[in-house]
Amino acid sequence: MKAEIIAVGTELLMGQIDNTDASYMSKRFPECGVYVYYHTVVGDNRGRLAECINIALKRADVVVLTGGLGPTQDDITKETVAEVLGLKLVFHPEILENVKEYFNTIRHNRKINIMAASNEKLAYYPEGCLILPNNNGTAPGCIISHFVEGADKTIILLPGPPWELQPMFDNYVVDYFKSKIQEGLKSVYLRMFGIGESAMESVISDIVSTQTNPTIAPYAKKGEVMLRVTARYEKGKQDPDLILKPILDILHERLGEYIYSDKDVELKVVTANLLMSKNITVSFAESCTGGMLSELLTDVPGISKVFLGSVVAYSNEIKQSVLKVSGNTLKKYGAVSEQTAKEMAQGVRLLYNTEVGISITGIAGPSGAVADKPVGRVYIGISTEQETLSYEYTFSGDRDKVRYFSCLNALNILRLYALSKG
Amino acid sequence: MKAEIIAVGTELLMGQIDNTDASYMSKRFPECGVYVYYHTVVGDNRGRLAECINIALKRADVVVLTGGLGPTQDDITKETVAEVLGLKLVFHPEILENVKEYFNTIRHNRKINIMAASNEKLAYYPEGCLILPNNNGTAPGCIISHFVEGADKTIILLPGPPWELQPMFDNYVVDYFKSKIQEGLKSVYLRMFGIGESAMESVISDIVSTQTNPTIAPYAKKGEVMLRVTARYEKGKQDPDLILKPILDILHERLGEYIYSDKDVELKVVTANLLMSKNITVSFAESCTGGMLSELLTDVPGISKVFLGSVVAYSNEIKQSVLKVSGNTLKKYGAVSEQTAKEMAQGVRLLYNTEVGISITGIAGPSGAVADKPVGRVYIGISTEQETLSYEYTFSGDRDKVRYFSCLNALNILRLYALSKG
Repeated sequence: MKAEIIAVGTELLMGQIDNTDASYMSKRFPECGVYVYYHTVVGDNRGRLAECINIALKRADVVVLTGGLGPTQDDITKETVAEVLGLKLVFHPEILENVKEYFNTIRHNRKINIMAASNEKLAYYPEGCLILPNNNGTAPGCIISHFVEGADKTIILLPGPPWELQPMFDNYVVDYFKSKIQEGLKSVYLRMFGIGESAMESVISDIVSTQTNPTIAPYAKKGEVMLRVTARYEKGKQDPDLILKPILDILHERLGEYIYSDKDVELKVVTANLLMSKNITVSFAESCTGGMLSELLTDVPGISKVFLGSVVAYSNEIKQSVLKVSGNTLKKYGAVSEQTAKEMAQGVRLLYNTEVGISITGIAGPSGAVADKPVGRVYIGISTEQETLSYEYTFSGDRDKVRYFSCLNALNILRLYALSKG
Repeated sequence: MKAEIIAVGTELLMGQIDNTDASYMSKRFPECGVYVYYHTVVGDNRGRLAECINIALKRADVVVLTGGLGPTQDDITKETVAEVLGLKLVFHPEILENVKEYFNTIRHNRKINIMAASNEKLAYYPEGCLILPNNNGTAPGCIISHFVEGADKTIILLPGPPWELQPMFDNYVVDYFKSKIQEGLKSVYLRMFGIGESAMESVISDIVSTQTNPTIAPYAKKGEVMLRVTARYEKGKQDPDLILKPILDILHERLGEYIYSDKDVELKVVTANLLMSKNITVSFAESCTGGMLSELLTDVPGISKVFLGSVVAYSNEIKQSVLKVSGNTLKKYGAVSEQTAKEMAQGVRLLYNTEVGISITGIAGPSGAVADKPVGRVYIGISTEQETLSYEYTFSGDRDKVRYFSCLNALNILRLYALSKG
């Protein structure tokens, strides 16, 4: 099935927010046999929105509209969809009850000032639609099944805020399509680190091109690559895992050393979970990354169990006074060197009394290059009671990319260390 | 003039990247009299792209296409635009020369493997177009002026990568429209911190609704709000600053205490520049923000001049052993308290020997709330030789929002301190 996602909201056309709802759904839709062919963004204007809906109904089977379900005058999505499809809007008293209850629950914490009259608008939905409850806000979503010029179309209305849309999409929309389609679909995600997109593709090009079931789709995002492997199967008759197994075996054989998860989770989460489950305490000494590594790891709730903290040492004085890097090392090899990285890692490990110390020192740019060390040169150190090592990297790209790639590599070094522990 | 932005690329439809190019241009276009009415995303498919271009030419005066200018088979934007408009593609030898030169320059640093044949594709552009040089990549952009059914349309092709698109847009596209339009337009941005979007709007609603020249447009993004004030003026006859002045005076009178810049720059950049220009050395002690504050400040190049580093103290042991917070304070008031924040700020200032020490300690959630302190409670400390203070906040929202808002407030405290210094 072909889908189009229409985001309704003038704030998107003013560049205030990115259309992350569209990215989110585009990534997840193929799991349930729906493929996104178009994204459209249009403002809060009935005429222009109606035109966009008509265009979408011609070129897609599934039309998803996000935003514009709220109680204000600017919220026009339900009204416009009903008008285009020739449907009445029907009052749902239970929705109004839920809205009142929602406000009662959260009123304890926040000041809320809403007019009762405009709330009534929240309870009108196109006749015959399936209401999708909103557990994180006031406006429910809905699914409309409708014939347009003899063709069966599905029109889905979802709230704009990502924290409302994402759980609603996961809990109701995915299941709706999974139950609707004849065949079953099961996806496995293989997340990888340490291999580029084109290198990964060349390693598996022979199977990607000949493969029809399961299918293999590569993704790449900010230093990490991923494969989505999707099996189609006859419900109740075939076991999707048996269809997936031969191809997963081949992928593991060829790419196993890079695969860090068979779920769609980020490297920092995998590393954090490993550290927590094995109770490995860590501390960081950061120079060029300036706290980014610590920030990434502490983004994972519960990590305080094993992460004690870090020292951001942005100057040579601090490297010496706090991390106990020797003045001789700094003078002889420089702050960006294998030797300094090692002493930083050891210094923070001893200061924070952790099992592992990790350090990053490098030249993030745009300036700072020296004769033998270009912008992008980074050293990552790892120190334990047994040994202290350092790795050299040269990253391309701007300041932000050099810093981010340094952190990903440090997380991976930490992950490999945790894996090596029984 | 009405504009539509068409992003071409299957990776957008797979949810791999957000359409940040569209947000960027949507925000900047009004400065030169162009208003964005639609965003469209379509895959690398000639038929579907041609259809989208035809729709856009009907409903917009300016059609911007991003992506698909590269040398591969998948790059189809130039070919499809030429076909739709009935234009030939013309070979530009000077573009090929530039491409060769570009690769020679960067070959020193990276391994590049490209086929000479496909590079030729980079040098073909629609006849009669204005070529826009690309100083950050290989594919130039272009501007085509063309009559479609009697109406004058402008079609602009830009490369997809943001680091190529943004400077090209700033350097060429903005000026193209500014020189084209009869009247002049001048915009001033007022960036604010410490006031919410709706509070700001209510303070100025009387002038926003009656104002026609200059116009006032509010923006809000992640904890900061902004007003764009735009004056229209007759070129060579009127001084736009005189048109802007009366309204800017009123805005400063009503909102002055919140305004931190009259340019479109982030709070961290304003704070960093102030610290650097006044040579105020700083260090941070971070608990719940886990390094995020340090990461934000070190995102500004050159900051190592005044930022010495920070201590991320994620455990009570480290607060005691490294930051010298007294065990008694932690026991009596807890790690999340005014007293601990003060001792952390003072501790890092003394350890790093800086003029100012800033600390953040709080409950970022989702768990961690205690009887008298909810999730979102944060204390920010500031310590100088003269005095040590602490501020209490209660932020709503998820873990990421609590952490980010804590950092913004810390940056603002630091900014106000720097301002207070002569």
